[in-house]
Amino acid sequence: MRDAYHEELDALRVDMVDLARRVRTAMSRASRALLEGDLAVAEEVIDGDDDVDQMRRDIERRIVDLIARQQPVASDLRVLTAGLRIVADLERAGDHAVHLAKLARRRYPMTVVPEPLRPVIARMGEAAVGIAGELEEVLATADAARAASMERHDDTMDALHRALLREMLETPWSYGVDTAIDLAYASRYFERYADHLVSAARHVNYQVTGQWTAEVGDLA
Amino acid sequence: MRDAYHEELDALRVDMVDLARRVRTAMSRASRALLEGDLAVAEEVIDGDDDVDQMRRDIERRIVDLIARQQPVASDLRVLTAGLRIVADLERAGDHAVHLAKLARRRYPMTVVPEPLRPVIARMGEAAVGIAGELEEVLATADAARAASMERHDDTMDALHRALLREMLETPWSYGVDTAIDLAYASRYFERYADHLVSAARHVNYQVTGQWTAEVGDLA
Repeated sequence: MRDAYHEELDALRVDMVDLARRVRTAMSRASRALLEGDLAVAEEVIDGDDDVDQMRRDIERRIVDLIARQQPVASDLRVLTAGLRIVADLERAGDHAVHLAKLARRRYPMTVVPEPLRPVIARMGEAAVGIAGELEEVLATADAARAASMERHDDTMDALHRALLREMLETPWSYGVDTAIDLAYASRYFERYADHLVSAARHVNYQVTGQWTAEVGDLA
Repeated sequence: MRDAYHEELDALRVDMVDLARRVRTAMSRASRALLEGDLAVAEEVIDGDDDVDQMRRDIERRIVDLIARQQPVASDLRVLTAGLRIVADLERAGDHAVHLAKLARRRYPMTVVPEPLRPVIARMGEAAVGIAGELEEVLATADAARAASMERHDDTMDALHRALLREMLETPWSYGVDTAIDLAYASRYFERYADHLVSAARHVNYQVTGQWTAEVGDLA
């Protein structure tokens, strides 16, 4: 039988998967809002951010409480401190979906994305949603090998980011400086969203193996 | 006489002030690199980031260790968990100084900033350095009232950010889409740098008073 401590750890894991799912849904909607100029969907993403923040706070509070009550050492402490980093990364990924939704809202009823650049922006949205879906499974299964393999997504999104900038520089620019600025921000938000999810995956790998897949900060 | 626990808390505070000082110096140099196209200074900022990351990890490790060993409750737990947020904010502020330095390096031997926009970018750099200096004092003195007053700096930097975007839209644009993109990013980096320092100040206020000066996430 599982003791109360491990039951609480299991509950934390379930809630982290739920948080990741919300952050994925937010990105899916934010991409749609951006491409289609859909104000209602943009508002959903923006309004949903309070729940994401609240879930992060709730999970953090429970983790700190476990550290203080259980005085865990070694691998148990590692799981908990890495958990703090995972929920911080998830929340910050969610913030970037919100930034995209706010771009869409600010431009409404126009859309942010000029026709020639729609395909690359759509690919960025699909990549971001795919990365979030993969992270959900990694969180649910604590699969270290799969978590480590998520490192490749840094390259996926960097390549799309560079492709967008290149297309912007190669497109005869009749869309104004404001559109150039918005697209630069949009591209950055997709990229940072992916960065945070890859960072979260790195912390899952660390929870399981105690090893870093890349040079990043560690808590414990 | 102070016990070992409070001596460790004092040592943590000293190290947080030191971390804030490094993050201020990084911004001062990054602004100079950006405005003057100074490659050597840009490289200093970029190379210095490892030290900042290492200091964050060191402080975090000591805080988690104190939570596990001392099982603090109430205000002691609040001080420690808020400390985790403060060092995370400081490190992320430092990352934005590095982003600015990398922009400068990428454009070298050209400079990022067209002549008409130099004044507003210079003001952003000065504001950012000033905010960091104020945070150092807030950290050193644990002055809650002064920490709360740092909220105003969100407006300071937002106003400069909007001023830059407005000037970009009003300037007949002969500087290319690439310069528009770089300036959009630079402005965002200054703004995010300030955001993180204001967030750190908010956590100092919370350490002392247990109250939030604005709606933000809390750990404990």
